[in-house]
Parts: sequence; structure tokens; C-alpha cells
Amino acid sequence: MEYSGEKQMKEYKLPKGFLVSGVYSAVKRKRKDLALFYSKVPCRTAALFTKNRVKAAPLILAIRQFKKNSLFRAVIVNSGNANCMTGQRGIRDAERMVKETAKALGVRKDTVLVSSTGIIGQFMPIEKIVGNIERLVKKLSENSLDAAAEGIMTTDRFKKILTKEFIVGGKKITITGVAKGAGMIKPDMATMLCYILTDADITEKALKKALAGAARVSFNAITVDGDMSTNDTVIIMANGEAANKNIKEKGADFEIFQKNLDELSKNLAKMVVRDGEGATKFIEVIVKGGKSFDSAKKAANAIAESVLVKCAALGGDPNWGRIASSLGASGVVFDPDKLEIILDGVTFVKNGAFLPPKEKSNMVFKGNDILIEVNLYSGKKNATVFTCDISKKYIELNAHYTT
Amino acid sequence: MEYSGEKQMKEYKLPKGFLVSGVYSAVKRKRKDLALFYSKVPCRTAALFTKNRVKAAPLILAIRQFKKNSLFRAVIVNSGNANCMTGQRGIRDAERMVKETAKALGVRKDTVLVSSTGIIGQFMPIEKIVGNIERLVKKLSENSLDAAAEGIMTTDRFKKILTKEFIVGGKKITITGVAKGAGMIKPDMATMLCYILTDADITEKALKKALAGAARVSFNAITVDGDMSTNDTVIIMANGEAANKNIKEKGADFEIFQKNLDELSKNLAKMVVRDGEGATKFIEVIVKGGKSFDSAKKAANAIAESVLVKCAALGGDPNWGRIASSLGASGVVFDPDKLEIILDGVTFVKNGAFLPPKEKSNMVFKGNDILIEVNLYSGKKNATVFTCDISKKYIELNAHYTT
Repeated sequence: MEYSGEKQMKEYKLPKGFLVSGVYSAVKRKRKDLALFYSKVPCRTAALFTKNRVKAAPLILAIRQFKKNSLFRAVIVNSGNANCMTGQRGIRDAERMVKETAKALGVRKDTVLVSSTGIIGQFMPIEKIVGNIERLVKKLSENSLDAAAEGIMTTDRFKKILTKEFIVGGKKITITGVAKGAGMIKPDMATMLCYILTDADITEKALKKALAGAARVSFNAITVDGDMSTNDTVIIMANGEAANKNIKEKGADFEIFQKNLDELSKNLAKMVVRDGEGATKFIEVIVKGGKSFDSAKKAANAIAESVLVKCAALGGDPNWGRIASSLGASGVVFDPDKLEIILDGVTFVKNGAFLPPKEKSNMVFKGNDILIEVNLYSGKKNATVFTCDISKKYIELNAHYTT
Repeated sequence: MEYSGEKQMKEYKLPKGFLVSGVYSAVKRKRKDLALFYSKVPCRTAALFTKNRVKAAPLILAIRQFKKNSLFRAVIVNSGNANCMTGQRGIRDAERMVKETAKALGVRKDTVLVSSTGIIGQFMPIEKIVGNIERLVKKLSENSLDAAAEGIMTTDRFKKILTKEFIVGGKKITITGVAKGAGMIKPDMATMLCYILTDADITEKALKKALAGAARVSFNAITVDGDMSTNDTVIIMANGEAANKNIKEKGADFEIFQKNLDELSKNLAKMVVRDGEGATKFIEVIVKGGKSFDSAKKAANAIAESVLVKCAALGGDPNWGRIASSLGASGVVFDPDKLEIILDGVTFVKNGAFLPPKEKSNMVFKGNDILIEVNLYSGKKNATVFTCDISKKYIELNAHYTT
């Protein structure tokens, strides 16, 4: 798949009042492995963390911090080590990263968050990291998005940075997101991390609502191998420097903000799927006619996570039988005699039975982008999930990686 | 994997009063594709069908038959065509198979069941099948277990036939099972079919209870790719010809019957897993310390169905991080700080943290049989699931098979 981060170069920039940096601290072998996201003024901040019961130390710490505080100034992120299943020592290491970063920045330590991604079950090379925090702070600038994006990458093949600009009440608002890949990635449980920075003035309540709404159609709508990582984190920071009229959780201003955050998040999430290890095809699964959003989503996930469906996508085989069977096994209630399956726009199943396609169907599933549409006809709710195929390269990479 | 059906040859035979046969009717390309299981006298009969919402025509018909009747004489099975998603015409085809078989056998048509396995969404070549039923009946014999086992196979590499003999109240009872493979098999949704014949005299209630109990530790404890087929069927027929004292649903006699049926079913189920398409390793997952059997089972399935865990097994990499993460994502409630993970007998995780193994761990995951043991320490219930790894051959076979 061709998707060059370089192409995006001119399209992204930092919102007002933010500085970022990325440096190399020898945790990873070759690339930058430390990143810092910083705002000159305190930010209203919202976050989403993995629902995996096994959570890495930085997430345990961050969840505690959010219980006391919602105004933050900075996030420090390291790649190469996930600081997961490392017990109390892992918590102390995460706390030390927060403390040293706060000290170097000259801010209160309860305004600094930490994230980690990389290998599970090894203690952090904490001295290496701590020894590079001052340099990381010195490198902060308005022009270092690329360095910060590289700092959070693990086996990602390209950087994931996007910017949206739009007008709210006559003021220009900027939102910029930086992400790294999730799942189907070489070392273990690859994590999805995403940091979204905006200069919007927005209430805490509205920010939380907007992030939850955006995640529903983006980060929570992608599945690669069905696993949730122990470190998945999405953080949004809003510093108000755009000086717009404060956005509340309802009304036209909020809707504009939500729409733009949705688009930004959805496009970042799609970049994550396209960068899935060994992936050759991008698959969009749309399930219509669900009794509820949740049941439509469950049905879409069942299709997207079926290894047999992924194999069919890889092989360019419009195997609707596998799709019907994964739906039937999903636990979602529907009438099989009403089922409709449309692949790349061509109807293969109508009223629950195979309908030999009249149109030319020899191009179905042959392209790099595949569209699977299903109608359950049991309600009016729809859900969309994005995924990728599974290839021999995926097996090779994941079978022969050694802890 | 080496597991020769031939080796079993001398170990199996039919229980008293049963005759079977298998013939070639040109539905499949080369091998026998029709099988008949027949008892000289009516049998108490119990059955389990797929929970997949999309059910093939023979299953829809059989479920209707079981509502009216529990005494059956015969089951006719075809391979090569699943008669699934074939609408009303599919039901009529299944009814015709029942009617013609009953006629040829000279028995009532409400005592004959039908099963199908093979490709989904194509109408049955019903004339080919019907044209061979008389020959199938003529071939019935006590020595045709191999022909019948071949008749139900799709891409299975070896026949799956087992016999158990044991004494109840001074009388010898025989149970014989014939199965075919499920999942991770080339053409589409490969189905698991299993026919168990016994000469035991047992009540209908006891037979149902015994089958449910056996399925719990065998057919419902195997997972290959997480999918349930549209055609999965297990049928047990008991004709009473052993002339033992009628077995009720409680007591020592029942316990002996249950124990033997459990063992037979478990070994047939393991044969199905070992024959998974492209499988190179057999994996047993034991989860202990669950709050309930269901939660222990859910946790075990989450590990067994994780593509990343399967890849680790293929690569011989004892990647406990993937196991911990799949548990955490399973939705099962447990305290991550108590988690214990033992691989091939070597402890890797204790009290939720990595414990560098003291014993020699370089042989872990290197053999053809892999044992994953987990203790959740949240209760006293245990569950076991059997699965296999995923290989490039699996991807190749499933990607490049065309409907």
C-alpha cells in the first residue's frame, strides 16, 4: 500500500500555543523513541484508555491523575518499552518520568501525563529515558511534529499526522492529531496511541463528549486482529488559544467542532488500518438494519474479525458464504431469510439466498479497497468498521518474532 | 502431523444391530460422497445442532423432525454440497433424500434423518444423490465403517472413527463414533459432523443428558478459527441391542456410560483439531480459577482464538504477553495482579508479573503439542479448550479457494 507520510508534510501544523519534540534515547534500536507534547498554558484534557483488564503502568497512573485533575500541560511518550506487567516498579518508573519532565519544563507534576508503547514484561530502561528528558525539553518547537511522530512509532511504516482547520464564530480553530499503529504489527500487542492538540476554547464536558463521539466512529471502529492492547490511549488537549467563544456541549459551534474532530479521527484511524503489518487490502464493513447500534457493530466486527473473510479478501474471492456464516455465528439476532449481502456494489445475497449477480462480478474483491455491505433488515441502526486482510507476511512476522 | 486413520483400523467396529455403508455419487470429484447409518430396530436418538443463526436446510428439517419424534432408524449424509442458503428448494431436496431413503430401507420416513456438508449456496445435485440411494442401501453391512467415514469427509486428511467397549451390569456395551473435520479447512465453512452409534439400552432423558455432558468437554471445547459452521451436527443413536438393564439418568450405570462417551467424544474432537487445514501444532488451553465454568471457558476461548497466540505457537515462541493481553481483552473479570501463566510446565508469569523462568525454558513451545495453563485466581472453576496453530498454508488454502 502506498501512503506516504511525506506527502502530508505541507498539510499539517501545530495549533496555537503548542510545542512538540522528539529525540533518540537508545530504548529502541534506531529511530527516535521519546516524544513530548506541550502547551504554553494549561489545557482542558480528555482521554480514553484501553478496556483491556491488563493495563500498563502509565495507564494506571494516568487514570489516577484524571480522577484528581483535568487540566494538563504536557504528555511525555516513549516507544520501545510498554512498561506493562512490570508491577510496582513499573508504576514508580512512570511516576519518575512524570516528575523529571515536570521539573525540566518548570510545571507542576500533576499537569504532566506519560504514555509508553513497545515490549511487554520488561522493566523500563529508566535511566536512559530520564537522562534525555532535558534535551527533549530543549528541542521543543513549533516545527517538530515529524520528530514527535517518529518518537511514538514502533513498527509503523509511515508517520500519521493530520491537521484540520475550521471557523467557529469568526475564529480559526486548528486541530492536529498524531497517531501510531495498532495490531497486526510486529512486536507483540502493538498499541494504538493518539494525541490530539487543539487551540479551541471548549468546556471540559464538551471536550469529553466530542472525544467519545469521535472515537465511536474512528478508533473504536477499527479492528485488525480483534485484540485490544494493554496500552491503547487517546488524549485530547484544548488550550483555548484560538480565543473563540467557549464551545459548550450543545449547539451549532459544538456540531462544527464534533464534525471536524470526527473526520480527523476517522482519517487517522484509517491510516492505522492501512499500516497494519502485512496488510495488502483495506476493508470497509457496513452493517445496516441493526436493531441497535451495538448489534450492528457486533455484526460488523464479526465479519471484520473473521480470519476466513480476511483470507477471502487477500485472495480476491467474493466469498459471501463466509460472510453469512460469520454473521450467523455472531450472536446478533436477525432473520436469515431477509439477509442481504452486497460486495463492492454487487448484490450476491437477497432474501437470504444466493442471487447469481447479473452485473459483471469478476472485478469484485480484486482492488486494494474492499467494501462489504450487509443489511440485516431487523431495525434501522447502522455501523461501520474498518479492517484489513491477513497475509502470509503477517503470519511470518508474528510467528517468528521472539520475545 | 502424523495421525493415520489406518492405524486405528483394528480398534473400531460397529455396535450390535447397526449397519453402515458409503458410496460414490459424483457430487464430489473423487471420493465417496454418500453415507448411511442404519439400525435394524428403532433407536432412542439425541442430537445437537449448530447455534449459527444461518442453518442449512437439513438442520431446519431435522429440528422439525425432533419436535415430533425421538425414535429414528437411519441417517443419510452427503458430502460435497451443504444445502445451505438454498431457500425452500433446499428444504424440498432434504425432504426428498429422507423420503427416498425411507422407501429404499422400507421404514417410515419420519424415522430417517439427513445431513449435508460441503459448499454453501448451491442447489443440491439431487438426482445424482437420489439415483444412488438404492445402491447405498444394498451396500449396508457390518464391515463398512471405512466407506461410511469416507462418505462424510470433505478435505479431511484422515478418517475419524473410534470405538469404546465397556461393561454395564455384566453386559458389554459398544459405542462407535464417526466424525469429519471442522474449520480451518479448505472449502469455506467446513462443518463438523459426528454420528455416534451405541447398542446400549438407555432412556431418552439419559441419552440427552449424556450427549450434552460429552459435548461440553469435546465438540464444544474445540475451536479452530472461532467460527461456527452452518451445518454442525452431532447425532447419537441407541438401539438397546446390548440387552443391558435400561440406563437411567442417574446412578453408577449412567456414570460409566457418561465417562466412556466423554472419552470417545473428546478423542474424536481432538482428531478433528489435529486435522485442521495447515495445522502444524496441537494446543491445549487450560484455564483454572474461573468464577464460573462459563467465564473460564470464555477466557480459554479468547486465548485459543487469538491469531497472535496461534502465530506464537507456530513460531515456537512462548509469548506470554500475547496470552495475558488476550485474557485482558476477553471481558472476563479477574485481578491482573494475581494472574499466573505456565507454558509447557514452565512458569512465566506469577502474581501478574513476568518471572524469568529458572528452569530450562528453551524447549517451551518447540514440540508438536503445546500446553497453555492459566490461573485467574478468581474462583474454583476450570475449563479446557483444544485448538491448533495458524500457518502460511492455512492462509494460502483459504485465500486462493474460489467459490
